[in-house]
Amino acid sequence: MNTWGEALRLAIFGESHGPAVGITIDGLPAGLPVDQSAVRREMQRRAPGQNTLTTARQEADEVEILSGLLDGHTTGAPLCGVIRNSDAHSADYDSRLRPGHADWTALLKYAGQSDARGGGHFSGRLTAPLVFAGSLAKQALAASGVRIYGRISQIGRVRETESPAEEALWRELAKQSFPARDSAAMQAEIQSAQSQGDSVGGVVESVAWGLPAGLGEPFFGSMESCLASLLFSVPAVKAVEFGAGLALAAQQGSQANDPLTSENGVIYALSNHNGGILGGITNGMPLLLRAAFKPTPSISRPQQSVDGQSRQPLLLEIRGRHDPCIVWRAVPVVEAALALAILDRWLLVRGNDPAAWGWGAIPSEPGQPIQSAGER
Amino acid sequence: MNTWGEALRLAIFGESHGPAVGITIDGLPAGLPVDQSAVRREMQRRAPGQNTLTTARQEADEVEILSGLLDGHTTGAPLCGVIRNSDAHSADYDSRLRPGHADWTALLKYAGQSDARGGGHFSGRLTAPLVFAGSLAKQALAASGVRIYGRISQIGRVRETESPAEEALWRELAKQSFPARDSAAMQAEIQSAQSQGDSVGGVVESVAWGLPAGLGEPFFGSMESCLASLLFSVPAVKAVEFGAGLALAAQQGSQANDPLTSENGVIYALSNHNGGILGGITNGMPLLLRAAFKPTPSISRPQQSVDGQSRQPLLLEIRGRHDPCIVWRAVPVVEAALALAILDRWLLVRGNDPAAWGWGAIPSEPGQPIQSAGER
Amino acid sequence: MNTWGEALRLAIFGESHGPAVGITIDGLPAGLPVDQSAVRREMQRRAPGQNTLTTARQEADEVEILSGLLDGHTTGAPLCGVIRNSDAHSADYDSRLRPGHADWTALLKYAGQSDARGGGHFSGRLTAPLVFAGSLAKQALAASGVRIYGRISQIGRVRETESPAEEALWRELAKQSFPARDSAAMQAEIQSAQSQGDSVGGVVESVAWGLPAGLGEPFFGSMESCLASLLFSVPAVKAVEFGAGLALAAQQGSQANDPLTSENGVIYALSNHNGGILGGITNGMPLLLRAAFKPTPSISRPQQSVDGQSRQPLLLEIRGRHDPCIVWRAVPVVEAALALAILDRWLLVRGNDPAAWGWGAIPSEPGQPIQSAGER
Amino acid sequence: MNTWGEALRLAIFGESHGPAVGITIDGLPAGLPVDQSAVRREMQRRAPGQNTLTTARQEADEVEILSGLLDGHTTGAPLCGVIRNSDAHSADYDSRLRPGHADWTALLKYAGQSDARGGGHFSGRLTAPLVFAGSLAKQALAASGVRIYGRISQIGRVRETESPAEEALWRELAKQSFPARDSAAMQAEIQSAQSQGDSVGGVVESVAWGLPAGLGEPFFGSMESCLASLLFSVPAVKAVEFGAGLALAAQQGSQANDPLTSENGVIYALSNHNGGILGGITNGMPLLLRAAFKPTPSISRPQQSVDGQSRQPLLLEIRGRHDPCIVWRAVPVVEAALALAILDRWLLVRGNDPAAWGWGAIPSEPGQPIQSAGER
Repeated sequence: MNTWGEALRLAIFGESHGPAVGITIDGLPAGLPVDQSAVRREMQRRAPGQNTLTTARQEADEVEILSGLLDGHTTGAPLCGVIRNSDAHSADYDSRLRPGHADWTALLKYAGQSDARGGGHFSGRLTAPLVFAGSLAKQALAASGVRIYGRISQIGRVRETESPAEEALWRELAKQSFPARDSAAMQAEIQSAQSQGDSVGGVVESVAWGLPAGLGEPFFGSMESCLASLLFSVPAVKAVEFGAGLALAAQQGSQANDPLTSENGVIYALSNHNGGILGGITNGMPLLLRAAFKPTPSISRPQQSVDGQSRQPLLLEIRGRHDPCIVWRAVPVVEAALALAILDRWLLVRGNDPAAWGWGAIPSEPGQPIQSAGER
Repeated sequence: MNTWGEALRLAIFGESHGPAVGITIDGLPAGLPVDQSAVRREMQRRAPGQNTLTTARQEADEVEILSGLLDGHTTGAPLCGVIRNSDAHSADYDSRLRPGHADWTALLKYAGQSDARGGGHFSGRLTAPLVFAGSLAKQALAASGVRIYGRISQIGRVRETESPAEEALWRELAKQSFPARDSAAMQAEIQSAQSQGDSVGGVVESVAWGLPAGLGEPFFGSMESCLASLLFSVPAVKAVEFGAGLALAAQQGSQANDPLTSENGVIYALSNHNGGILGGITNGMPLLLRAAFKPTPSISRPQQSVDGQSRQPLLLEIRGRHDPCIVWRAVPVVEAALALAILDRWLLVRGNDPAAWGWGAIPSEPGQPIQSAGER
Repeated sequence: MNTWGEALRLAIFGESHGPAVGITIDGLPAGLPVDQSAVRREMQRRAPGQNTLTTARQEADEVEILSGLLDGHTTGAPLCGVIRNSDAHSADYDSRLRPGHADWTALLKYAGQSDARGGGHFSGRLTAPLVFAGSLAKQALAASGVRIYGRISQIGRVRETESPAEEALWRELAKQSFPARDSAAMQAEIQSAQSQGDSVGGVVESVAWGLPAGLGEPFFGSMESCLASLLFSVPAVKAVEFGAGLALAAQQGSQANDPLTSENGVIYALSNHNGGILGGITNGMPLLLRAAFKPTPSISRPQQSVDGQSRQPLLLEIRGRHDPCIVWRAVPVVEAALALAILDRWLLVRGNDPAAWGWGAIPSEPGQPIQSAGER
Repeated sequence: MNTWGEALRLAIFGESHGPAVGITIDGLPAGLPVDQSAVRREMQRRAPGQNTLTTARQEADEVEILSGLLDGHTTGAPLCGVIRNSDAHSADYDSRLRPGHADWTALLKYAGQSDARGGGHFSGRLTAPLVFAGSLAKQALAASGVRIYGRISQIGRVRETESPAEEALWRELAKQSFPARDSAAMQAEIQSAQSQGDSVGGVVESVAWGLPAGLGEPFFGSMESCLASLLFSVPAVKAVEFGAGLALAAQQGSQANDPLTSENGVIYALSNHNGGILGGITNGMPLLLRAAFKPTPSISRPQQSVDGQSRQPLLLEIRGRHDPCIVWRAVPVVEAALALAILDRWLLVRGNDPAAWGWGAIPSEPGQPIQSAGER
């Protein structure tokens, strides 16, 4: 269903060419000061139309907050943010199925009743509300010392295998608009695909520094399960890895295990192949993950397809605006998923009492926020 | 938390060296005829002690069904299966943390109060109840025409990249006790690790044939999200891929997109890079996924570690019984996860009315199973 | 948390004096034709400012549908409806706690950070989105033959114990703007309270005719549990009964049991003390329930209270607009809850495949909506 | 479905005449010392066969704990308790439907495939696992200062309207095996019904003293919603009230509102008509509720019924063991529901970190339970 989370609940809605997309976030503790300009910056990182390597669709992606915010802080009630679709081309419905898109499956599942314009509810535009929710989660985490970064680790054939080992390196990358060490080669890869009327895939890597140990619930509530369920909601994600990920399959235990040591009674690992998670629970090391994105299915090269109405084969050439590579715009999306999953798991451990989150939400003296009047 | 699923609900419990492990399965439609010998076969595929490449622990892994089954069919009420631990060595608690295991994180999360013997609740032994639940799901799916297979596609450095394209090939592989084309090389890889007191990782690939299109809910309820949340519950899984998975990141859209065509009005794809899922919804093509397992953390080679009690560093040599490679025994586990996730999504689409599942659960005439007496 | 439902998911948001209230409804099968004028009529039944017995606040309560609707039918994607607050008096925040309201508990829970204006998120205004969602559920049910009615069975000391036995009587009552047999005496009771600067409570009874047997899941998923959890979300509800309800406590089994008989193989009961539910599951008889509302806490008579800021006692006189009795406007709210809970339980049984709901959502021939392309 | 709770998860299973009934409780913080003799006492309060006013079925109702408990304390992992059915009469299946029971609805819902012996999964025997879970919740709450009591406030026509105002009175009543002021008259009412081959209903009232303010989430997550969903899972419950409940419908606001005052900055109410809950959130006053039970449907007096197999009318005389009144045995059931719902809501506020619950679960020095190793 379209709700996600246990202690933090997301309910997402919207279509690419409908009036709006949006999200309701329930469970944010009261008193979180919300930096709206930081929200705006995050939205801009994902927004379309920023340069020649992204779709020409122009969207301000301004979020109207309808509830849950008062005088610049969260109230504890559900917070709903709505993003209007301003540059939706009200093109006629096109019954030709675009290969690689959800056109086909939506047609079958909804018996032809879904909003198919621009992918409808299956559009990558649904990641805008996710980035909005993530920007709030990031601020909540930042107030508790957690820092989240993302980078592009692969575009097509250009791949950077080594993850930055130091937080400072992540911080430096985060300052770049195209956060990759070899950004020139990667952008060239995108341009090359674009010039052929084609598209290209890639990988986003994201990390959280400063996490406490103990987040994640056993088995079905593992941190990896929680993160993967959110990441695989994101259109075009087809693989998710934690730590060394797939590479661990080729290793021996003596390579893969992270040796432990201690310093002043604090245990830590000497390597981080497990990506900060053991048994589904954070160990306090940086939480590291990667999400692989398939190439944007919309390409202008002719493709063999079918008309959903007549069910007849045809040769399809997709015109119009589309991203030759979605990976660049996906960096804040993956970071958002990371922040949201961490906050959800942390709320289960720490609870939602504003006092526990230390956001300065202190009621006027005298009196206690949580008290038992029956006890007088 | 330790419950999973929306229309099919799993609640798992147990510890490696406690009295038992088990699972409650809620949502199975009434009237499913349960083939107990098929259940037993599945349990045996995962059970320990079968050969020299697995742990010497001996467990019959007989499931006692406490509820939800009558006269050989499901009743519609929750079905609880319990598997006793018979060969649990009641060794004293060992406070030394095994690198790569959850010992460390469990210690921190539960403030030293968890059952740490043999990994406790974090043990791979918890996959036994999952395989049990999966065997019921497989039977439910089989009655509706869905066939599930699994194979080992990688052990350490031995990797078979190409997935079998025909169902017959999968069926053949499934007859092998070690379901891999190059099983000899793979077993040699395990033996090599074992002889060095080491362990090795690998990849399990699983596929579902005969699925209807239209399973999976949009966004957070995507088929991939549902599957990944279950797969990442399984101890040692560190990466999950669908279809071509990570390889899609290196491709261009013109390669990655599956071209469409139709035959007698039925649409299908000419390739299956998307693994049978588009927009989170099944398209009727075979659903294909891979789960990567890290090497068993338990190795007898000395490792740098810490004592959880004293927090002092030490050199750890793990003795006792353990698998040099868990991947072999993990094949039915991955298949179980695939079956359970499909059944959960299918129940949302088809409902749990026994009549809809066509298991011969027909009440005696006259009268309708679902009727409105108020309407006379 | 602020989400509700298993197969139908509601996520509600909004505050009384914020920009808007709204709701996202997930799980509505695709293809439901939505009659917007019927929606509007339902909204008007609950809307304030209709007569001298309700608050003077003027709200059009027009619903803007942001998603999930296309060309007059549901698309299968989440449907979000937003209702703007137009007549919110932007009064200064008043820290004086109104007895009987959530001012006190919200202050403590949210450490003074909640939106306390007009009750904020705890306002009865949140029932507007619920009525909106309910109006869609009613239309979905009506298409499957279910009819829902409500009546006022008690206002203060005026009480009508006998429930209408025939559907025709319910239908007649439903035509009245004040749906009660003794509406004159009840309205006089409201006026009497109003003239004293006081308020009065009451009871709403609601019924569903035409329900199939078999809805409701065992134990925790009982129809009563599902309904009660929704009804007790409604502000001011302090008691919920099914069938003969509380009166059953005074009875003997021989009176309370509904004798059974059959006609042409269809079983039915000769009385309906159980309100159409046995063992948490519908039996096809009319589903009958009552929800008791406490008197509106806002009264103009002086009350002993406390200032939430200073924590000092004070004498409070509440000025401004408020309902002397909320029960009248609550009738469509209770009906909405009934419709939503039934639809949620029905979706678990019947599934969300549009074909099963028979709303004319038939895809163009040839081809099947749910098919297996892998089967060719 | 058969799982309940958000931060505390219950999964119940079992049938009256199957091998066992049981429950898995997930979310109990680690380190809770479990007093097994207190558990046993609770089980005995509900167990059958205690005296001539209850069924003659003999069940020890010993709970075997399969997981989640080690050395007398909870481990943080799911705790599964199983209660074997020892005195299940393996009578042949009787297809005659007992009026007032779920025989009819189970037959229709499960197409005749359910376990109908003794009510199967719909039996009151399912309250045994609930009482077990409740006994653990009570112990967890007691360690945080919460005391829960129950009493019988009505049996048939004998009704005690006034709730005890002082905790001491509740404590005194709790010492009685039949916890009512007018226990003689109430027992006579039961005997009278019994002697006529009939049964009688009643009301259980329960209270929690020492609760903190601030428990309960807004709207759908209200304390009343949470409690009612659990209480209406209990077989035979047909009405639930909070505080003055139904009586509030007859009152005016000036009577119903609880005036507020303060003492040393702590706000409290001068009356408790709202039963300790305002806006769905606890205010620290005693939480007070009532659950009304219908008379036991099993009576030996002849009743008009139907054979579920042949669908033919018949005259039914139920023989065998049954309770003339279930209310007595229901007192610990209602208390259990109260404890479980409070713990669920409290876990959302306080989190599940054992350190927050202060159960002496202190890890060996040095080191912190929740730390960030990445921060060294």
